[in-house]
Amino acid sequence: MALIVQKFGGTSVGSTEKIKAVAERVLARQRQGHQMVVVLSAMSGETNRLVALAGDIQKIPSLREMDMLLATGEQVTIALFAMAAKEAGGDAISLLADQVCIHTDAMHTKARIENIDTQLIRKHLASGKIVAVAGFQGVDDDGDITTLGRGGSDTTAVALAAALQADVCEIFTDVEGIYTTDPGICKNATKIDRISYDEMLELASLGAKVLDIRSVGLAKRYGVPVHVRSTFSENEGTWVVGEEKIMESMLVSGVTYSKNVARITINKVPDNPGVAAKIFLPISDAGIIVDMIIQNTRAGSLTDMTFTVMRTDYQRAMKLLRKIAKEINAESVTGAEDIAKISVVGVGMRNHSGIASTMFQIMANEGINIMMISTSEIKVSCIIEEKYTELTVRALHDAFALDKENVPQEEQTPVPVS
Amino acid sequence: MALIVQKFGGTSVGSTEKIKAVAERVLARQRQGHQMVVVLSAMSGETNRLVALAGDIQKIPSLREMDMLLATGEQVTIALFAMAAKEAGGDAISLLADQVCIHTDAMHTKARIENIDTQLIRKHLASGKIVAVAGFQGVDDDGDITTLGRGGSDTTAVALAAALQADVCEIFTDVEGIYTTDPGICKNATKIDRISYDEMLELASLGAKVLDIRSVGLAKRYGVPVHVRSTFSENEGTWVVGEEKIMESMLVSGVTYSKNVARITINKVPDNPGVAAKIFLPISDAGIIVDMIIQNTRAGSLTDMTFTVMRTDYQRAMKLLRKIAKEINAESVTGAEDIAKISVVGVGMRNHSGIASTMFQIMANEGINIMMISTSEIKVSCIIEEKYTELTVRALHDAFALDKENVPQEEQTPVPVS
Repeated sequence: MALIVQKFGGTSVGSTEKIKAVAERVLARQRQGHQMVVVLSAMSGETNRLVALAGDIQKIPSLREMDMLLATGEQVTIALFAMAAKEAGGDAISLLADQVCIHTDAMHTKARIENIDTQLIRKHLASGKIVAVAGFQGVDDDGDITTLGRGGSDTTAVALAAALQADVCEIFTDVEGIYTTDPGICKNATKIDRISYDEMLELASLGAKVLDIRSVGLAKRYGVPVHVRSTFSENEGTWVVGEEKIMESMLVSGVTYSKNVARITINKVPDNPGVAAKIFLPISDAGIIVDMIIQNTRAGSLTDMTFTVMRTDYQRAMKLLRKIAKEINAESVTGAEDIAKISVVGVGMRNHSGIASTMFQIMANEGINIMMISTSEIKVSCIIEEKYTELTVRALHDAFALDKENVPQEEQTPVPVS
Repeated sequence: MALIVQKFGGTSVGSTEKIKAVAERVLARQRQGHQMVVVLSAMSGETNRLVALAGDIQKIPSLREMDMLLATGEQVTIALFAMAAKEAGGDAISLLADQVCIHTDAMHTKARIENIDTQLIRKHLASGKIVAVAGFQGVDDDGDITTLGRGGSDTTAVALAAALQADVCEIFTDVEGIYTTDPGICKNATKIDRISYDEMLELASLGAKVLDIRSVGLAKRYGVPVHVRSTFSENEGTWVVGEEKIMESMLVSGVTYSKNVARITINKVPDNPGVAAKIFLPISDAGIIVDMIIQNTRAGSLTDMTFTVMRTDYQRAMKLLRKIAKEINAESVTGAEDIAKISVVGVGMRNHSGIASTMFQIMANEGINIMMISTSEIKVSCIIEEKYTELTVRALHDAFALDKENVPQEEQTPVPVS
């Protein structure tokens, strides 16, 4: 008998028919002899509907009240799920975050889970009930409802699995698992069977939207095996596990891209100590996340600072930087929004050199200019012109032979580097 | 400075525009120097939407889960209201039943309030906040959400007013107050300025749908002054208060009718001791409410039992009674659905005889046959053929001169009784 935490997202519970289907599926699993905890999101469209109502009323909504409002979405789903499970002949009980005691800090709309009391859940599991928990929400020390931000239901599920020491946390989604790249761009994209937490962290942050990045970090910290799989099939999906549980590490696991990128350059910055802090502190205070940073040295005591931000923050960042540029006597601020970031990820890189240079060579062969480069232990990212995104992804995916499923990358001959 | 509890129903908060208008109104009242507690219902249509979702899933919904589901409706409204009050320059905080500690019994979907902890509300009032409380809901000893049944927000408001010893409980609705009869039937119907709790109890139970009957009982027990008034005007509405606060009691305060009535007769019942219990116990066990009961003695040891039930229970009651009739050896069960109940209500009846006979005379003048009669201290009800309903209401309203506002009935000459 295993203890299984399952999470179903908004599209999986988008109608009463779908909720019934989910209930049948959970019940079938329980009948195999397992204890079942189910974390549910709001029905698809519901959160947007509520956000629109708030938007009609306040331009900048009060965060505490926003959480009070949004938390109703998941509450509706868990109640309907419990009804569906009972109607299908099972027994289920819905529980809100404050009933489960999912304690968070008081950062409304982006709260972090501090601890979970599993007593009530264990009591209901012991009595044979399926426990349906509202995803995405928590309760702070004042007893106020908090929410964990978009994608928060994944975090709820993994946190519950960790607290309950569950055997597995299954994340159900509308695709079959994690893919080597975006199947919409590259028809050869294949499902990854196993991937390490670290690789998944890189993939999640780079735009693979299947699994929320915070939940992956949490899964890594507590060693929760996560199984990302399809709501609409019984197929095995992708297991996200510790590196030690992957027999043969892939040199490259996946190719990802993001178009939510913009580049900003501050030209001719007087190169004094402390100048970087003067630039980046106000940006960070404004809640703008800076990704890559490159500093080019010019002749003399002037330097150019180039960095990337999310495209959605671009206008705000430009406005702020023009002010800063004046204060530090830089010449000008320039920028571009028509860029994209392409990354290759793989834990095999740790003990295998040459991935970066292979990547650059492939792109050179296609005539694609690389504007910025950043690397980590298990990732290489390049900034290119946006219009080359699809071409680059396909070229890299082919070159690293990601379409050949179950053939470990280390057996492949990398493209020779000149 | 007064402490005012205001309740706004679903039609008053049916859109974000209406919620903004309500917030402006509450804020204006606060600026006059009052402490404001606002009880809100679900936006009109929302409860029906949620009930329909549940109906898609379970034929007979699980009551605990139904409460979990329905409670989201009011939660949405209080969050939006608090946002609207802030946007309008005020300060407000929304609170759920479990935050306020509105403790109820565990009778899901029709729970009764046991006690309310006013500490948190008083704290927020003291800091100048408008406190928005979710109507209709409570929390039981297990920490589960309960709901008070349709019309429950009125009860929440009056219970809060009682617990807070508020100066007044204002119930906002889409009409100007309580009327002497249905303005849709009788164009001379006039708004009642003041009415006693007892009269209101009779009026509420007889079909005046403006104020939930349980809330009136609660108001009477705790002496809460209730002011029923319009959301859409600043006019004074109807005050529901203790009898001692009404200077001159009206002989007749209002004329009401109900078409949700059906009549059932069990013919030739052997008149043994205990036979009434054999008939009415199973009916009560089935949750069917019996209103008037008349027993006619026939010659010999046989009797006819006639009584009324709600028309919505008629088919179920008939089925049950045919079974019972066999068991007690009664001859047959007959019934009629095309009847109506007409009532006149007034505390003045207590010390003034002749109202009933006046009523019968007026109806006789119009040629209307009275099928059943029932009386209480402050009410006379007659069952008639349904098609005469409007005619009877108008005739009684005119005869008791209810269209002459502010003229106490005792100064009128009643229609002479022959």
